[in-house]
Amino acid sequence: MYRVGIDVGGTNIAIGLVDENYEIIEKAGIQTADASTPEQMVKEIAAKVKEILDKKGLSEAEVEAIGVGVPGTAELDTGKILYANNLDYENVPFLPMLKEELAKKVGQNLADKTSFENDANAAAIGEYITGGYDVPSFVMVTLGTGVGGGIIINGKVLRGCNYAAAEFGLMTINVDASENYCGRRGGFEDYASATALIRQAKEAMQSENGRKSALWSKVGSIEELDGKKFFEAVREKDATAVEVLDRFSDYLAEGLTNVINLLQPDVLVLSGGITRAADLFLDRVKAKVSRDVYSRASNRNTQIMVARGIADAGDVGIIGAALIDKLEA
Amino acid sequence: MYRVGIDVGGTNIAIGLVDENYEIIEKAGIQTADASTPEQMVKEIAAKVKEILDKKGLSEAEVEAIGVGVPGTAELDTGKILYANNLDYENVPFLPMLKEELAKKVGQNLADKTSFENDANAAAIGEYITGGYDVPSFVMVTLGTGVGGGIIINGKVLRGCNYAAAEFGLMTINVDASENYCGRRGGFEDYASATALIRQAKEAMQSENGRKSALWSKVGSIEELDGKKFFEAVREKDATAVEVLDRFSDYLAEGLTNVINLLQPDVLVLSGGITRAADLFLDRVKAKVSRDVYSRASNRNTQIMVARGIADAGDVGIIGAALIDKLEA
Repeated sequence: MYRVGIDVGGTNIAIGLVDENYEIIEKAGIQTADASTPEQMVKEIAAKVKEILDKKGLSEAEVEAIGVGVPGTAELDTGKILYANNLDYENVPFLPMLKEELAKKVGQNLADKTSFENDANAAAIGEYITGGYDVPSFVMVTLGTGVGGGIIINGKVLRGCNYAAAEFGLMTINVDASENYCGRRGGFEDYASATALIRQAKEAMQSENGRKSALWSKVGSIEELDGKKFFEAVREKDATAVEVLDRFSDYLAEGLTNVINLLQPDVLVLSGGITRAADLFLDRVKAKVSRDVYSRASNRNTQIMVARGIADAGDVGIIGAALIDKLEA
Repeated sequence: MYRVGIDVGGTNIAIGLVDENYEIIEKAGIQTADASTPEQMVKEIAAKVKEILDKKGLSEAEVEAIGVGVPGTAELDTGKILYANNLDYENVPFLPMLKEELAKKVGQNLADKTSFENDANAAAIGEYITGGYDVPSFVMVTLGTGVGGGIIINGKVLRGCNYAAAEFGLMTINVDASENYCGRRGGFEDYASATALIRQAKEAMQSENGRKSALWSKVGSIEELDGKKFFEAVREKDATAVEVLDRFSDYLAEGLTNVINLLQPDVLVLSGGITRAADLFLDRVKAKVSRDVYSRASNRNTQIMVARGIADAGDVGIIGAALIDKLEA
């Protein structure tokens, strides 16, 4: 049996056919700009799904589910996208519209097997399933442009009363912060996102000690600094870079300790591009969390680990979406 | 049918017979010091349960459940108290021991219907049931000596992998805090507990402006300041007291916003003695939360309210314990 995953993004809509090994065996894309109204978008998507199935010679009956990940608030009980900034959608009855188009193009049965989910939740579901975590409570914290993620408790996504839970980045860890980079003053993502790390590194480069940093030799101008160059400097034991990463790790640990003191999940997974360099900071983070966290007497504390499933694969959007119905809505 | 609730505290163990209207119709107490070993304690408790049932002429069959709230980590799957600071217990197989004694004193059937729970969770269950909240997700935040509470999701307490979730007080909201009063630097309970409020008021009294405060006229010496006197001064519009309460409210709002950004419960209940004066601060707290919280577009946001059930009744310990088996373990 196969599944179809649809990842609706602000610039691109990716559609993939996923097999039972969670591999994408066929893929298609639509420029979001080419489907600027919801009506157009659902038509384009349904047409591509049909195209993919035809190309692989698959009948409707060979597809067990279609899942859509959307970048906004997905109201499960109505199928509406309540709000999606990147799409400029408000109160769009997206899922019923898509189902109607799918019924026309690929048949009513498959249309009926279509569900949708917020994209961060879809990614958490994708990681939870493909990573083979078999635990009652699971939290994924994604360190990217911001800090997002998902919470899965007893095999169910914790969506919140209006589908906006798990906004880890908007948890204040510093009420007295003088600067405000994200949606909330002193928010966790001002300290622990990938964006924050690079900002912190740039600030350090411009400090008195930082002017001697090897980071400067890696860039033509400071704007060119990125994660790869930064972690290179850490590996070369550049003092400025190491100091920045240590401080970043401590802030990351503060926020994770908060999450654990509230939820104490069995597993807390970190994802996001910078976790590819987790060997440089994860031990420090874990050590601080285990010093600071409330429950530390037992051998059954929250396990902190880097995503081992598809969370950081380029195709997490498609695969996560394809798998959303594997968890109870 | 009746229930028995047992509230094990550091100084007193309260045992009550609860009827179907959640009223305590018979009560007994034991000084914790008189039951200094676990063996003694379970014997004393079982004897008191027997005494109460005999006094009311009740047979074993007329009692549908016995519940025990314990001040520590209650490991549900083994019945062990992993850790209870106030009792100086570590790894005590409390529930099996108690069941054995109950079997001897009141019969095996009733012993089999005995369960236990952490006392903060028992209080949350008590409030959830007696307050008649019928919502998928419920959070109670108790503002007392510290800040504690409980989380109930889909009719189940969220206990955490080692029974230590919902430690709201130990959520850092100020990583750069210079002082540390509670278990965690910058923790929510350093800002938003009843203890913190009184500390903040005392500090303000000693400031230059505070020396003129009407708070001084209410006490012989500053140590005598308590919540009642403080709120009296607020009602009289004493500038120092009002300023302290406004700042306290803002910190409280910061922490509650964090909780909502993570969990977005349908209902967030505030409890604790100081919520009796909630008319003086709840509007301000709600207004700030609704400005700061991530999801604010909809009419389906988290409802913040003061406990309407038994959370602040003197007998919450007994009644909460009596009701724990009403939720799925």
